[in-house]
Amino acid sequence: MREVFHQSLEDVQGRLVEIAELVAVAIEKATQAFGTSDVSLAEEVIEADAIIDEKAVALDELAIEILARQQPVARDLRIVVSALRMSASLERMGDIAEHIAQLTRYRFPERAIPKGLKSTFTAMGQLDVEMAKKLTQLLSTQDVTIAEDLRNLDDKLDELHVSVFEKVLGENWQGEAMATVDATLASRYHERFGDHAESVAKKVVYLATGDWSADPEL
Amino acid sequence: MREVFHQSLEDVQGRLVEIAELVAVAIEKATQAFGTSDVSLAEEVIEADAIIDEKAVALDELAIEILARQQPVARDLRIVVSALRMSASLERMGDIAEHIAQLTRYRFPERAIPKGLKSTFTAMGQLDVEMAKKLTQLLSTQDVTIAEDLRNLDDKLDELHVSVFEKVLGENWQGEAMATVDATLASRYHERFGDHAESVAKKVVYLATGDWSADPEL
Repeated sequence: MREVFHQSLEDVQGRLVEIAELVAVAIEKATQAFGTSDVSLAEEVIEADAIIDEKAVALDELAIEILARQQPVARDLRIVVSALRMSASLERMGDIAEHIAQLTRYRFPERAIPKGLKSTFTAMGQLDVEMAKKLTQLLSTQDVTIAEDLRNLDDKLDELHVSVFEKVLGENWQGEAMATVDATLASRYHERFGDHAESVAKKVVYLATGDWSADPEL
Repeated sequence: MREVFHQSLEDVQGRLVEIAELVAVAIEKATQAFGTSDVSLAEEVIEADAIIDEKAVALDELAIEILARQQPVARDLRIVVSALRMSASLERMGDIAEHIAQLTRYRFPERAIPKGLKSTFTAMGQLDVEMAKKLTQLLSTQDVTIAEDLRNLDDKLDELHVSVFEKVLGENWQGEAMATVDATLASRYHERFGDHAESVAKKVVYLATGDWSADPEL
């Protein structure tokens, strides 16, 4: 039974990694589409989100099946419940990549990135991509030192998020209302993406170290 | 064992109702604070969110304990897993009420509601409050006809969300960048609040009717 359970957990882990990889691809393409107003790349991200959603649902079904058949308790139970939560966060990260792609499509043939904020959003996009890739690594290696990198990346993302509002609400902002709306939404999406990545990373760490007292959600 | 399980489920249901009631109060106060620039009411919402968070964590712990001790299967298992998800959605609705309160505080002594959009945001706030109250009712009575009302309210909310962007991006919009940022964020918060309420309602319906094929998340 124990061995069956461990095989099931490996399956769960493999699926989390797979979804995280798809999310990393999605945010990379969404960032590129947003930066270059590439509407066909944006469409690709929007279409591919259905695959992330399906895989998240399949993972949830697997987790529920494991709960039903193997009746885990204690730490094993928390691992399976956490998998359900990580799946929800990853699915949401996919949605956010889709939202960034949608912004690109709505504005086409205009550029979705507001003037004066191109370098900021390029940097935010790169941080998102880096976070998604580190998250994939963390999920597949369980090397908890990677979580520290994710925390630092998220801090940088939060700083950029604040800087977007400073810019938009500053005296020198010349953007039209559309640029202001786009800056607000895009910045919020990038920031939320980082929050979700950080939230998944925390769960991996607490499961690996056995100490979930610091994450009340686990 | 069966009876113990049913008592546990009643406890879970009672806690979901309790959290939903707190969320209804939070969004009602947040809406009022936002509409009247009442910063002390906003502070109240911000402080009270910690209570919603704690209650959601306690509910999650209870659900995990039920999984561990009573090892439910089939529909019973899905009920408990759904409770975890409903708890996450309710917790997020509390966060959104807090975000609306924070907008009020950031702008004080200025008004957070952008000029020309007061009636729209008042209507969005009222829809949120109505949705939260209906959700409380749905969770406590399991009367699935209420879910239909929630769907209709959410549709109205989505229409208003679209109308905010039409206004802000229209030729007659005279708002400064700050008004545009606030309109964008506030509208997004209200819309997400409705989405979460609708998502909880769907889970209640599928659990009550036993048919969760239409909600892949269950």
